Amino acid sequence: MGNKIIKVGITQGDINGVGYEVILKTFAEEQMTELCTPVIYGSLKIALYYQKLLKMEPMSFKVINRAEEALEGKLNMINCMPAELSVSPGQSTAESGMAAFKALEAATTDLKRNAIDVLVTAPINKHTIQSKEFHFPGHTEYLEECFGEKGKHQSLMILMNDVLRVALVTGHVPVTEIKESLSQEAILRKLLLFNTSLKQDFGIIRPRIAVLSLNPHAGDAGLLGDEEQTMIIPAMRDAEKKGVMSFGPYAADGFFGSKIYQHFDGVLAMYHDQGLTPFKALAMDDGVNYTAGLPIVRTSPDHGTAYDISGQNRASEISFRQAVYASIDIFRNRKNYQEATINPLRKEYVDKGGGDNVKLDLTKEETEE
Amino acid sequence: MGNKIIKVGITQGDINGVGYEVILKTFAEEQMTELCTPVIYGSLKIALYYQKLLKMEPMSFKVINRAEEALEGKLNMINCMPAELSVSPGQSTAESGMAAFKALEAATTDLKRNAIDVLVTAPINKHTIQSKEFHFPGHTEYLEECFGEKGKHQSLMILMNDVLRVALVTGHVPVTEIKESLSQEAILRKLLLFNTSLKQDFGIIRPRIAVLSLNPHAGDAGLLGDEEQTMIIPAMRDAEKKGVMSFGPYAADGFFGSKIYQHFDGVLAMYHDQGLTPFKALAMDDGVNYTAGLPIVRTSPDHGTAYDISGQNRASEISFRQAVYASIDIFRNRKNYQEATINPLRKEYVDKGGGDNVKLDLTKEETEE
Repeated sequence: MGNKIIKVGITQGDINGVGYEVILKTFAEEQMTELCTPVIYGSLKIALYYQKLLKMEPMSFKVINRAEEALEGKLNMINCMPAELSVSPGQSTAESGMAAFKALEAATTDLKRNAIDVLVTAPINKHTIQSKEFHFPGHTEYLEECFGEKGKHQSLMILMNDVLRVALVTGHVPVTEIKESLSQEAILRKLLLFNTSLKQDFGIIRPRIAVLSLNPHAGDAGLLGDEEQTMIIPAMRDAEKKGVMSFGPYAADGFFGSKIYQHFDGVLAMYHDQGLTPFKALAMDDGVNYTAGLPIVRTSPDHGTAYDISGQNRASEISFRQAVYASIDIFRNRKNYQEATINPLRKEYVDKGGGDNVKLDLTKEETEE
Repeated sequence: MGNKIIKVGITQGDINGVGYEVILKTFAEEQMTELCTPVIYGSLKIALYYQKLLKMEPMSFKVINRAEEALEGKLNMINCMPAELSVSPGQSTAESGMAAFKALEAATTDLKRNAIDVLVTAPINKHTIQSKEFHFPGHTEYLEECFGEKGKHQSLMILMNDVLRVALVTGHVPVTEIKESLSQEAILRKLLLFNTSLKQDFGIIRPRIAVLSLNPHAGDAGLLGDEEQTMIIPAMRDAEKKGVMSFGPYAADGFFGSKIYQHFDGVLAMYHDQGLTPFKALAMDDGVNYTAGLPIVRTSPDHGTAYDISGQNRASEISFRQAVYASIDIFRNRKNYQEATINPLRKEYVDKGGGDNVKLDLTKEETEE
């Protein structure tokens, strides 16, 4: 594997949002095409439209038909849009929803046949993209359907920057339905996914995962809810048996207030706002969303279409650039992990009980997954 | 009123927690007794014990019997503890719970008869303090019972520092019971309390209040819950009719991520962790808890007993000192507000309809409460 230049597939996202702005600003830096070979799924016409609108220096695109034709050092573009497509920055239109899906579909197809190595997605509008082919709450669920095993709920949403990685047990559910979505089994599944991802995607040999409590003050010894006792702690015990080091459950406010998150490799939050609100409060502009648990690598910036500032040269590309960096790092870490563990030595179970009579037992099962 | 030196009653809190450490460190600065006249409710013996344990410079206490005897420029101490009281830093004991209550009771009694002006409480252990006399989840509820009107739920918890004021609609309730505790009426009540407090306690003439949504992505137009439509927005409309300017509801993660909280005088969160987690993540060490809505002024630091570091000279007094400052500021603002509004001019309703024929109508009702 070594340091092969990685092909990064990039979807344009919603053409009326800030997608093109953050893509163009990211690759306006020439060093970016030395770091990876970008393949943009979208429309040359629209890219040029935004370039002009944002008064950017002209950039040279290399229009290709298939990802295999992508050239290193170039800003490759696969034109997968209809010839006539109207752009209205800041507007939510059916046309922009359709265009977002076409780009995603083309990129996903190429990812499936390994024509690109990783996928970085610009933001979509979750309402306008809905169609017969796309009937999901977002990218994550669509990709789980494309690449996951049927019915296994194997993806895990991780929000990350340089100092913090936050994963969620429950995602896009109303607060009143958190209880139904939460179970000992669901928490265990996410703990295992998180642990595996921290090892193979981030190169952490023995990950330390902090688990947040569901209730205020970690339930205050049962006064404020008992899910800590009935679900979270049992799930942590189950995970421990499978070799996962988890700590807590911690009351969310004190956990972030005292900054002890700095001592952990990952933080598992029970629900959306519990994890994402402190993450975004702390992460400033450099947060990245990573869909862990799938056989492919997909990242995205942690912001949305931002219609309110679209086309005004006000969007920061930092999060998008970090998403590109993260996809490359994760892809490399995974390869390294696979190579390092392809032919593992079995653990040696040594019976130390009998004084000098030390025996090596190779019949025992390994417990760590 | 002017700049009368204000008598600040201070309860020792749990004698095995960091209470004495933060009190002593705060008043080790001599300027503090120029700013206010402190009256500590506790035990000279224990104060001296901690002074020695923490290797602090000796401070001179003025032991008094009644708050009326408090001297300006001195660190006054009312000894309201039994002669024999054992201290065990870091331990949760029934004795320390009893001692915490005795101090609180004495201070509350003095506050009732105006022998002190404001109350600043050091942290208690909510489990050990429970008794026949104290059967409340915390200070707030006890003070509401002592000073509020029966059954009116008129207190409002505000967490504040120099840049952010966060109030909660629901407080210490399990996540699965948030729905039951939340109603249009409850949100309206808290909006009115918050607005009044921002005016009279913080001197803001026309407060701008941001309201957070209950559900992720503000319910995403109903896809992720409908409480935004059925409760929150109607409550905001009701509040508007009573002259309250509120904005939102905002998705909590984006609200803190984009830093738009900087444009508001206060933020109303729907539940404990939604408000306190980002607040503490951002507030560093200087957060203050203020119990608004009551006829008296009470503040406290935003940390707990911190048994794990008690007696080790590791506690920061910044939050406690800020709590003292805040109590003084709020007391002064309230007095000023009362003086400024004691005899208000009625609003003048001028009928501008008739050209030169402008009429002043003093019969119309005022709508703002």
